[in-house]
Amino acid sequence: MRDVCVIGIGQTPIGELWERSLRHLAFDALQAAMQDAGVEQPDSLFVGNMLAPRINAQQQLGALIADFCGWRGLEATTVEAACASGGAAFQAAVRTVASGASEIAAVVGVEKMTDATKGVVTAALATAADADYEGVHGVTFVALNALIMQRYMYEHGVPHEAFAPFSINAHRNAVSNPNAMFHSEITLDAYRRAPMIAPPINLFDSSPVCDGAAAAILAPLEVARDLGVTPVRVLASATATDSLNLDDRRDVVTLDAARLSTERAYGQAGIGPQDVDVFEVHDAFSIIATLSLEAAGFADRGQGTHLAQEGEIGLDGRVPISTLGGLKARGHPVGATGVYEIVDVVTQLRGQAGDNQVKDAEIGMAQNIGGTGATVVTHILGV
Amino acid sequence: MRDVCVIGIGQTPIGELWERSLRHLAFDALQAAMQDAGVEQPDSLFVGNMLAPRINAQQQLGALIADFCGWRGLEATTVEAACASGGAAFQAAVRTVASGASEIAAVVGVEKMTDATKGVVTAALATAADADYEGVHGVTFVALNALIMQRYMYEHGVPHEAFAPFSINAHRNAVSNPNAMFHSEITLDAYRRAPMIAPPINLFDSSPVCDGAAAAILAPLEVARDLGVTPVRVLASATATDSLNLDDRRDVVTLDAARLSTERAYGQAGIGPQDVDVFEVHDAFSIIATLSLEAAGFADRGQGTHLAQEGEIGLDGRVPISTLGGLKARGHPVGATGVYEIVDVVTQLRGQAGDNQVKDAEIGMAQNIGGTGATVVTHILGV
Repeated sequence: MRDVCVIGIGQTPIGELWERSLRHLAFDALQAAMQDAGVEQPDSLFVGNMLAPRINAQQQLGALIADFCGWRGLEATTVEAACASGGAAFQAAVRTVASGASEIAAVVGVEKMTDATKGVVTAALATAADADYEGVHGVTFVALNALIMQRYMYEHGVPHEAFAPFSINAHRNAVSNPNAMFHSEITLDAYRRAPMIAPPINLFDSSPVCDGAAAAILAPLEVARDLGVTPVRVLASATATDSLNLDDRRDVVTLDAARLSTERAYGQAGIGPQDVDVFEVHDAFSIIATLSLEAAGFADRGQGTHLAQEGEIGLDGRVPISTLGGLKARGHPVGATGVYEIVDVVTQLRGQAGDNQVKDAEIGMAQNIGGTGATVVTHILGV
Repeated sequence: MRDVCVIGIGQTPIGELWERSLRHLAFDALQAAMQDAGVEQPDSLFVGNMLAPRINAQQQLGALIADFCGWRGLEATTVEAACASGGAAFQAAVRTVASGASEIAAVVGVEKMTDATKGVVTAALATAADADYEGVHGVTFVALNALIMQRYMYEHGVPHEAFAPFSINAHRNAVSNPNAMFHSEITLDAYRRAPMIAPPINLFDSSPVCDGAAAAILAPLEVARDLGVTPVRVLASATATDSLNLDDRRDVVTLDAARLSTERAYGQAGIGPQDVDVFEVHDAFSIIATLSLEAAGFADRGQGTHLAQEGEIGLDGRVPISTLGGLKARGHPVGATGVYEIVDVVTQLRGQAGDNQVKDAEIGMAQNIGGTGATVVTHILGV
């Protein structure tokens, strides 16, 4: 297996981008990434997307985006794993370069969620759940996460307020990120007063519906050296899965797939949680950030919120998370998120995070989660 | 890059399978393939599917199917390229095994089209076209293919009847295939009298809406040898793309992506069209079979139907196609088709095709096409 590295990154700002279509967003991110890498043409393209079949009535995004970028003929496909689609597309690209089948692979995660009414978006997001056992009952995706959070609070005797630091941290880190959707800090008081969406999940526990695209360019290490770019190496790429439906989980307040995926990634990279300088978690909901920290070995079962309350998730904490705003405040264009996480980790490892720079960041982890924890894709990058 | 081979195949019969759900179909095909390979557990799973997000309100099929097969925790994702999803999933598995990241990779193509009304299916299939330039006008997927066929007949002075041999050949080959949807031969007279769907495409020019799943198990050559199975080697795996929208093609009656994909595959395998003993074409419509033969170098531009009329596409012809019924008569559960093609080629190369056996078949090619030719995935297998 060849060593693979990231040689370019690009992204669009995240928001309600009504003036740009799905293909335009993908183009913008890919062009920025190609320019960053200093290359003109990839030889393969992997698209991460979840909702286009339903919201945009569009499949076959690989060919569509390849052509729109002026790369007609290019090998191109789409990879899907619900909200973990971006991470899964990145993994497919890593494998393709590692196998020797591609020298310059482009990955783009893209999602255009705001072109549809709320009902359409809610129904589309619910396809991440088990249609036959969950969706059929009309349960929304937020409601499923609310069930997990409620159970967690009950089992571990954790008050709702204990989750506030995740949202406060994410919003603080987004302030200086020009690509983030939100640029305002929030207070504990604001968190307390936030409207409920699906109790106990309130507005600040959840990430926004939004549009955006992020891209990364991959190459084998020797090609990166020839190009003269500073490579960020892919030290690990691991996916694990669990049942889609919550009622069938071994333990509804433990993300088994996140634990497995992280363990596999640690094994590949030959490191442990103590070696991770930056951890871009999938904080689609504050409860998921909590469970991710526990699954990845940063906190014991039931102790995730303590880590946050002790300030250890901040930029100078033991495990800085959501360092450029995370899903909560940078934004969560679902199929694009996994690639945004990679972009954020690369930004940190290159020392280009500006006000949000984590000091001496050498190893970063990006974890992308599909459904309520059914597909978990973990990447570890290093310089 | 490690040599990769197919060590097991499985499939469900194709039809209106109302008694089996999407996940059951995938399970049935995977179990058959695992049993065929003599292994109990893969270490990765790749799902090819197109329509589940819209028809079955289900995404994240990777995790769903892995769990339903009893493989909780398994690495699993979905690969999508419209009707080329099955071939694209197979390619992702090939790359993953080639890279060294997986020793036993399972691929399943699955589609459950008959659980929805015709209108829903028609709208879902139209997502293979360009939503902004084609779909927005209400054009159906059959109508787009009809435009190509009409233009082909006009440009090359070919009468509609010239396409009949494709359908007659496919139906003849399906008779003895227990997994085929149709088991009746058709006559030229029946072809002439068939009801029009979208002129000039009639009922016998088009493949059926149906359900089905096919699976393949991949392993590196050395693992196959250890298992004592007769491996069928993957000699080439190549994808190429074109614009989704017909109006933007260089030449609407030439499948440029099929030509590119086939050329790349020939290059990888170090062979030419004269070396191909079996060619499983993507005969979703008889016009597409025609164009595929031309693009793959078996006939000059405008000469595809002559090849068929001269009997060269039969089991003892120069280039046997649709040898077990093809998309036309075996059936076309869209996202599963690419894997069915692989299964059919492997069946031929193993000499297990019974009445339909192509004599001394040593090299087989499977070509899976997404949209009206926007994504083309070509695999060449050999024993």
